[in-house]
Amino acid sequence: MPDPRPSPLPSSLSATALPFIPAPAAHLPGAGAVAGPHAGPHAGPGDGHAREGAAAAGRPSPAVELILRGPSGLGTAGLHLARREEPPAPEVPGTPAADGAPAADKAGETGEAGEAGNPIPGLYHHPVAEPDPVRTEEVSRRIKAWALDEVELYPEEWEDQFDGFSVGRYMVACHPDAPTVEHLMIATRLMVAENAVDDCYCEDHGGSPVGLGGRLLLAHTALDALHTTQEYEPAWARSLHADAPRRAYRSAMEYLVQGAGPSQADRFRHDMARLHMGYLAEAAWAQTDYVPEVWEYLAMRQFNNFRPCPTLTDTVGGYELPADLHARPDMQRVIALAGNATTLVNDLYSYTKELASPGRHLNLPVVIAEREGLSEREAYLKAVEVHNDLMHRFEAEAAAVAADCPVPSVLRFLRGVAVWVDGNHYWHQTNTYRYSLPDFW
Amino acid sequence: MPDPRPSPLPSSLSATALPFIPAPAAHLPGAGAVAGPHAGPHAGPGDGHAREGAAAAGRPSPAVELILRGPSGLGTAGLHLARREEPPAPEVPGTPAADGAPAADKAGETGEAGEAGNPIPGLYHHPVAEPDPVRTEEVSRRIKAWALDEVELYPEEWEDQFDGFSVGRYMVACHPDAPTVEHLMIATRLMVAENAVDDCYCEDHGGSPVGLGGRLLLAHTALDALHTTQEYEPAWARSLHADAPRRAYRSAMEYLVQGAGPSQADRFRHDMARLHMGYLAEAAWAQTDYVPEVWEYLAMRQFNNFRPCPTLTDTVGGYELPADLHARPDMQRVIALAGNATTLVNDLYSYTKELASPGRHLNLPVVIAEREGLSEREAYLKAVEVHNDLMHRFEAEAAAVAADCPVPSVLRFLRGVAVWVDGNHYWHQTNTYRYSLPDFW
Repeated sequence: MPDPRPSPLPSSLSATALPFIPAPAAHLPGAGAVAGPHAGPHAGPGDGHAREGAAAAGRPSPAVELILRGPSGLGTAGLHLARREEPPAPEVPGTPAADGAPAADKAGETGEAGEAGNPIPGLYHHPVAEPDPVRTEEVSRRIKAWALDEVELYPEEWEDQFDGFSVGRYMVACHPDAPTVEHLMIATRLMVAENAVDDCYCEDHGGSPVGLGGRLLLAHTALDALHTTQEYEPAWARSLHADAPRRAYRSAMEYLVQGAGPSQADRFRHDMARLHMGYLAEAAWAQTDYVPEVWEYLAMRQFNNFRPCPTLTDTVGGYELPADLHARPDMQRVIALAGNATTLVNDLYSYTKELASPGRHLNLPVVIAEREGLSEREAYLKAVEVHNDLMHRFEAEAAAVAADCPVPSVLRFLRGVAVWVDGNHYWHQTNTYRYSLPDFW
Repeated sequence: MPDPRPSPLPSSLSATALPFIPAPAAHLPGAGAVAGPHAGPHAGPGDGHAREGAAAAGRPSPAVELILRGPSGLGTAGLHLARREEPPAPEVPGTPAADGAPAADKAGETGEAGEAGNPIPGLYHHPVAEPDPVRTEEVSRRIKAWALDEVELYPEEWEDQFDGFSVGRYMVACHPDAPTVEHLMIATRLMVAENAVDDCYCEDHGGSPVGLGGRLLLAHTALDALHTTQEYEPAWARSLHADAPRRAYRSAMEYLVQGAGPSQADRFRHDMARLHMGYLAEAAWAQTDYVPEVWEYLAMRQFNNFRPCPTLTDTVGGYELPADLHARPDMQRVIALAGNATTLVNDLYSYTKELASPGRHLNLPVVIAEREGLSEREAYLKAVEVHNDLMHRFEAEAAAVAADCPVPSVLRFLRGVAVWVDGNHYWHQTNTYRYSLPDFW
C-alpha cells in the first residue's frame, strides 16, 4: 500500500470540479482539470490511445452529458454528493483560486510550497472541495477512540504521529457522499489498519521483507477467515489479537462485513489479496536487489496499490454496485487504471522523502532513471507523463462504461471512484509535513 | 497448489455414490461413504462439531432429501450428472467391490497396494464412478495438442512425464456433468498451467523460494491483466510469452474468459491470488527455516489449496452460480472446508514421496509430529482425523446451505464441489506411480 500520511494542515482548495469528467464547459481546454505546461491532456509518451481517450472525455458524449446532468427519477437522489448541513469553509486567501486557471502553473511560478502544499507542476488532476470540517473532526475523534480503546493500535507515545496521520480528513475528502459518519468510519478503520500492516510488517516500524509471506498470510486470515477443526480454530482466533496489525484488520473487517453486502466484502478480500501479492513482489525484489524493468514495476504497482480504497466507494456511499457489473471487464479496467493513476501520485509526492530514506526505495522515477538511462529530472517528468496518461485513460474508459451501461449504480460508482482519486491527490498535495517536491522546475 | 500427478493406471472403482451426502440408505452406517476403523465419521479430535455435522449429514433432512431426490421442473435436468453415451467400463476383478462394505478395511487387511492403489485406511471418502474412458481419451488428446502446439509447454523429452500426469482422467473424474469435452478442457488447461507454474517457479523444475514473489506476480498478470500506458503495455504483453508458465496461464485464462461469465472469471482470479499468497507463505517459511504451528500450517494450506479447481465446477458444468450466492458467508465456508479437506488428501497421499525428497517438505503429518511431539505414525493418523473432521464439517455445512437456499444453481454447485472432492481423492488413491502409503497399519 502506498504510504500516504499527511500533516494536519488546513486545506486551501475551495475549487470544485466534477470528478473524472470535465466541468460543464468540457470542450474548453483547461476547464475542469488542472495541469501545467509539461503534460497536458494531449502530451506524453504512448499518447495515441491517451489522446483518443482524452478527446473522448472532452467531447460532451451522451454518457458524459448524463453524468453531468445527472439522471433523474426515483432513487437517483443518492447519485448526487451529500448536501452539507454546515456552511462551506471560507476560501483561504492567497491560494489557488477557483477561477479555472491552471493551479499548477501558479504553483510552478512561485517555486515554493504554500501553506497547504502545491500540486506537482504539470500533474493532471482535479481540485476538490474542502473536506467537511465537522465530519473531519468527528471521524478523527472516533478513529482515535477505535485505535486506542478497541484495537490498542499504538503505544501512548505515538499519539502525535497518529494525529499527524490525519486520516479523518483524508477519508472525508475521498467520500463526500457518505450518508453518515459511521459509513465513513468503515473506510477510515480499514485505511488505518492497512497502514498498520504496511508499517509493522513491511516498512517503517519493524517491517522487513524476510519472512513477510508468512506474516501477511496470517494477517490475511483476519480478512478471509480460516475454516478448520474445533481443535485448531481457537489458536487461530487468538492469533488475530496477537499484534496491532491483526487486531486492526480483524476489527476493521468486522465493521466492513456489518456494513457491506457479501459481494462487497468478497471484492474487498480480493483487492487485499492483490495488495498483499504486491507487497510480496516488492519484498522479493528488495531481497534479491533487483531493479525491475519499468513495465515490471508498473505491474507490481498495480497490485501494491490504493485499489482496496476507491472500490469501497459504494459501501461507504450506502449503496451497492452489483457484483456482475463490478466484474465486467470494462469496469475492471476502469478500476485498475484509476488505482494505477492514484498510486503513482503517491510515488511522485513521496519521491524526495524516499530518496532521503536509507537504502534504495523503488518508485517510478527511480526505476525509469535506472532502466532508461535518464537523469533524475527527466525520469521524474516522464513519470508525471505516465501518470497523466493513466488519468486520461481512466477518464476515457469510465466515460465509455457510463455510456454503455448508464444505470444509476454504475454512474454513481464511477463518480465515486473519480472522487476518491481527486481526494487522494488533494491529500498528498497538502501533506507538506511528509512530502516536498523536488527542484525540477 | 498441491502437486497431484498420477500415473495413467486403470481405475478399479465402479461403485458410485452421490457426492457429499450419504447414499439413499444414508441412515445405515457405512453406506455411501467409506472409512476404516481408525477414524470413522464419529472419531477424531475436536469432534463435537464434527459429530453434529456427520449426524446432520446422516439424517435425511429436507435439504438432503431434496438433493437426493433432485429438484424437478423446468431447467432442472442439468442438475443430474451427464448421462453416458458409452457403456460403463467393466469392473476390474479383485478390486474393492461396490457392495457397500468399507473399501478401506479391505485395503488395510491386505497391506498391499492394488493395481489401482488403495485408499488410506480410515480416510473418510466417497468412491466415484469410473471416469468416462471415451472422454478421458479425447481430453488427453486435446490437452497434449494444446501443450505442444499452442503454448510450447515442455521440451519433447518430457513427453512421457506429461502423459504420466494423466490430467485428462483427473478432470473427467472431477467433472462428470460437463456438457461437452470443450467444457472439460477449460478446467484441464488451467490445471496443467497451475502445475507448470508450481513446478517451474516454486518446486521441482527450477523453482525456488528466492525471488518468488516477483515471478508469481508477473505470472499473475496473465490472469489479471496489467492496464498501463501504450508505451509499456507491449513489453508486458510480450512477457506473457516469455516462459512456459506464463504462456500456459495466459492461454488457459483466455479460454476460461471465453467460456465463463465475468463474475466466474473474477472468482477464479481471486482464488488464484489466494493460491499465490499460499505459495509465498510456504516459501517464506522455507527461507527462514520456520516450522509453523499446526494452525498456522492449516491457514497456509487454506491458501496453497485446490480451491481454484472445485470452484470452476459451474463453469465446466455450463451454468453459473450467481455471484451473490457464491459470496454468501455460508457458501464461502463450504468452499473453504471442501478445499481444505481435499488439499489434506494431497498431504496424506504424498507423505512418503515428500519424506523421500531432499530437504524438509512441510505437510500436515510432519508439522503435527514436530509441533505436538508425536511419533510419525501418531502424527499421520491424527492428520487423517483432521481431514475426516473437515470432510464432515464440509458435508454438514453444505447440507445447511442447501436447506437454507434450495435454488437449483446452489444445489448443483454444492453437488459439483462434492463431486470434485471425490474425484480428487479417487485420483490420488489411484496414483501409485507417484504415491505409496506409509506402513502405519
